Amino acid sequence: MNMLKNISVCFTADQFEKYADEKSTVVVVDLLRATSVICTAFMEGVKEIIPVLTLEEALTYKGKEGYIVAAERNAKPIEGFDYGNSPFHYINADVEGKILVLTTTNGTKAINNAKDHKVITSSYINLDAVSNHLIEENNDVIILCSGWKGVFNLEDPIFAGSLATLLLDSGKYTSSCDSLFASVQLLKNSGDDLFEYLSDSSHRRRLKSLNMEDDTRFCLSPPVKSDIIPVLKDGKLIRL
Amino acid sequence: MNMLKNISVCFTADQFEKYADEKSTVVVVDLLRATSVICTAFMEGVKEIIPVLTLEEALTYKGKEGYIVAAERNAKPIEGFDYGNSPFHYINADVEGKILVLTTTNGTKAINNAKDHKVITSSYINLDAVSNHLIEENNDVIILCSGWKGVFNLEDPIFAGSLATLLLDSGKYTSSCDSLFASVQLLKNSGDDLFEYLSDSSHRRRLKSLNMEDDTRFCLSPPVKSDIIPVLKDGKLIRL
Repeated sequence: MNMLKNISVCFTADQFEKYADEKSTVVVVDLLRATSVICTAFMEGVKEIIPVLTLEEALTYKGKEGYIVAAERNAKPIEGFDYGNSPFHYINADVEGKILVLTTTNGTKAINNAKDHKVITSSYINLDAVSNHLIEENNDVIILCSGWKGVFNLEDPIFAGSLATLLLDSGKYTSSCDSLFASVQLLKNSGDDLFEYLSDSSHRRRLKSLNMEDDTRFCLSPPVKSDIIPVLKDGKLIRL
Repeated sequence: MNMLKNISVCFTADQFEKYADEKSTVVVVDLLRATSVICTAFMEGVKEIIPVLTLEEALTYKGKEGYIVAAERNAKPIEGFDYGNSPFHYINADVEGKILVLTTTNGTKAINNAKDHKVITSSYINLDAVSNHLIEENNDVIILCSGWKGVFNLEDPIFAGSLATLLLDSGKYTSSCDSLFASVQLLKNSGDDLFEYLSDSSHRRRLKSLNMEDDTRFCLSPPVKSDIIPVLKDGKLIRL
């Protein structure tokens, strides 16, 4: 008998302990922007990404041969770091073969909270690749939205809705999770213009106020897709 | 100048600390069923309701003159208590003038977490009365969904969407809260048959498995409405 696997959606990094079971595959999403940045950095040739929780820990890598350090807090880059949390910082930059040490407000926290599970990161850049991988793997899945400082945001659940729809459509998954149902409903209402749908969302407004709307457009509708699947291995993200 | 007041929606009792500001009016919702029961009990003549966190604390009131004790855990009534968490336990029951001591899985916890604010409780029974009161009061509002054991549920945000829509339509409120936006979207999608829309939701299934669908129908579409507004005063809910 072919048992259906379960999908659930967790809305914030802080709530992950309520969903943790140590055996599900966890897909971390921080659409605007950490998990979009992570995929972009790998596409540009970064070898490994070390997600760390604090600015202090990230700075211990600064200047080390082969390492670059990147940080973001409250959507802004931080002085003293080589890079920030914009995908454009990595495109055509000198990152080939480097190890990127990254700390962000929400995404790196979500990755850390889930580290006792198999963790992969996703965004619209590698949505199809991640979906195909999960369908092939056929394990229970928790989609972990990073949220914003412990609070629900809109864009991560909408992405969760996109991924969940692909998984459910495969016929190999089921769900009894209210937050997954809500995510799919939000996606459904977003129509074909996610940028417009999110125009009143807190983080789109935040990035707009910082003149970062190009980042938002890039992450919501990436110009190129990728087959890269970042997976956490011994505290480092590597390409699967 | 007439400043617009702010509304936000918190999806679980556990997350309330992220929203707490000690000055907003907090509207606690546990639609299935605690806040529907609370209003029903007042309609049937209960004088005060003491929401407590533990079964042990509730039992200390058992047998005291003028008190009745009620408890629910995991949707089920608990042996040794006079009443449970069904509105039907209170209708035409001998509760006139009594003090009800109530402990439930989520709702009484939400009330307790918000006790440093002005707290009122709401459900579809007193939606219009609560909305009118808030519009008249014109204070910032946090709609606190009780959720289920720290996890998002579907029915409380849908109710939050109903209340938020009334407040926003008054022209006296605004919001920049992603969870309020999501709540309004979920309400919008529910159409005119909330019972059907919630058919796959976790708590409707839970109550169905316990043969409590009459409770669900009552709470989603109460046969009578009420002007009663329960408000927390010195740890007790009284009629405003």
